Amino acid sequence: MTEPGRRGRPRDEGADGRILEAAHELLVERGYDRFAIEDVAARAAVAKTTIYRRWPTKDHLLVALVAKIQDEVAVADTGDIRRDLSVYLTAIATGLDRMRLVGRDATGEGDRSAGVVAELVAAAARHPDVGDVVRNLFSRRNALPLALLERARERGALAPETSSEVLFDQLAGALYYRLLITGVPIGADYVERLVDHALAGSGVTRHPERN
Amino acid sequence: MTEPGRRGRPRDEGADGRILEAAHELLVERGYDRFAIEDVAARAAVAKTTIYRRWPTKDHLLVALVAKIQDEVAVADTGDIRRDLSVYLTAIATGLDRMRLVGRDATGEGDRSAGVVAELVAAAARHPDVGDVVRNLFSRRNALPLALLERARERGALAPETSSEVLFDQLAGALYYRLLITGVPIGADYVERLVDHALAGSGVTRHPERN
Repeated sequence: MTEPGRRGRPRDEGADGRILEAAHELLVERGYDRFAIEDVAARAAVAKTTIYRRWPTKDHLLVALVAKIQDEVAVADTGDIRRDLSVYLTAIATGLDRMRLVGRDATGEGDRSAGVVAELVAAAARHPDVGDVVRNLFSRRNALPLALLERARERGALAPETSSEVLFDQLAGALYYRLLITGVPIGADYVERLVDHALAGSGVTRHPERN
Repeated sequence: MTEPGRRGRPRDEGADGRILEAAHELLVERGYDRFAIEDVAARAAVAKTTIYRRWPTKDHLLVALVAKIQDEVAVADTGDIRRDLSVYLTAIATGLDRMRLVGRDATGEGDRSAGVVAELVAAAARHPDVGDVVRNLFSRRNALPLALLERARERGALAPETSSEVLFDQLAGALYYRLLITGVPIGADYVERLVDHALAGSGVTRHPERN
């Protein structure tokens, strides 16, 4: 959403960077409810209007922050698809866990709240423009793991009939399902088991009851 | 949460039923934002305090409604695990799609908002007691498809090393991931493809790079 504007104003990149950095710090310190654009402006030493011009609400700003954090997660292609998926999904799980705990006073074992992740999901559902930004963000970002899966399929590491989209939904979806819906903790070996299950499958053959 | 109380007051079952029915109607008509306990009380012809005694906030009431709707979805065991999963997951996908559209004026093709589903996810994240109710609800409800998968594994229709939990996370998770995160529509044949992928897997063999 802000990309075209940004590209046209290269001298603003410094302010954008400072704003996102301040936003990140304040989100970690205070969490979603007590996060305010006013405080971000003060810490980044910019006028509030400078922030509002780019991001009309705190949800827009937080989604931009999520985009920045996601962009910092590498998608490595070492040729070992099982390992590459495990590394990438572990990074996602770790990032989600960190994000759900921001601004929380109690971060004990029993705290299963999805925190700010759920707040942003609701913001995307509530405001069509925030929803568009979030959906575009994931479309752009997921192109990387989808390309990783495509290359693995092409070199024969995945079954030729594999849909990268469906496979990736199973993998990422399982993580978000535990985080947002069931609250079952994503334990240390969960990602490995998930990747094993998704790659190997649970049926004896494909379409056993159809072919 | 309300179960023990309910069991101790069998004469209240009629009021509970009327309240949940009125809540369902009003949610469909108005959506999450304009849903109010006061209107539920008027339509169900009960005192507001009767509702608040059982469900202290509208989120508690709506989660109880989701539980009731979920309980109406059958989990059939015909002995054909592929078909049983497809039928069950299609019912979940249909229910989620209906729920996300409640109270919406515009329900066009382009409307990808997760609607009230996302609002309830956020309510569960925001209020520890609502979160507990939601997590207990899914724990209780998911026991049914998990038992279905366990029986299939025991009779050899699923690979013996299958974890029902991980397999079910992949299946349900993919649906919620599309609904809540990417906004990619769950098309007509998606559930079939998802079940095929989860059962058959995408790797040529289990642990190809380890064994």
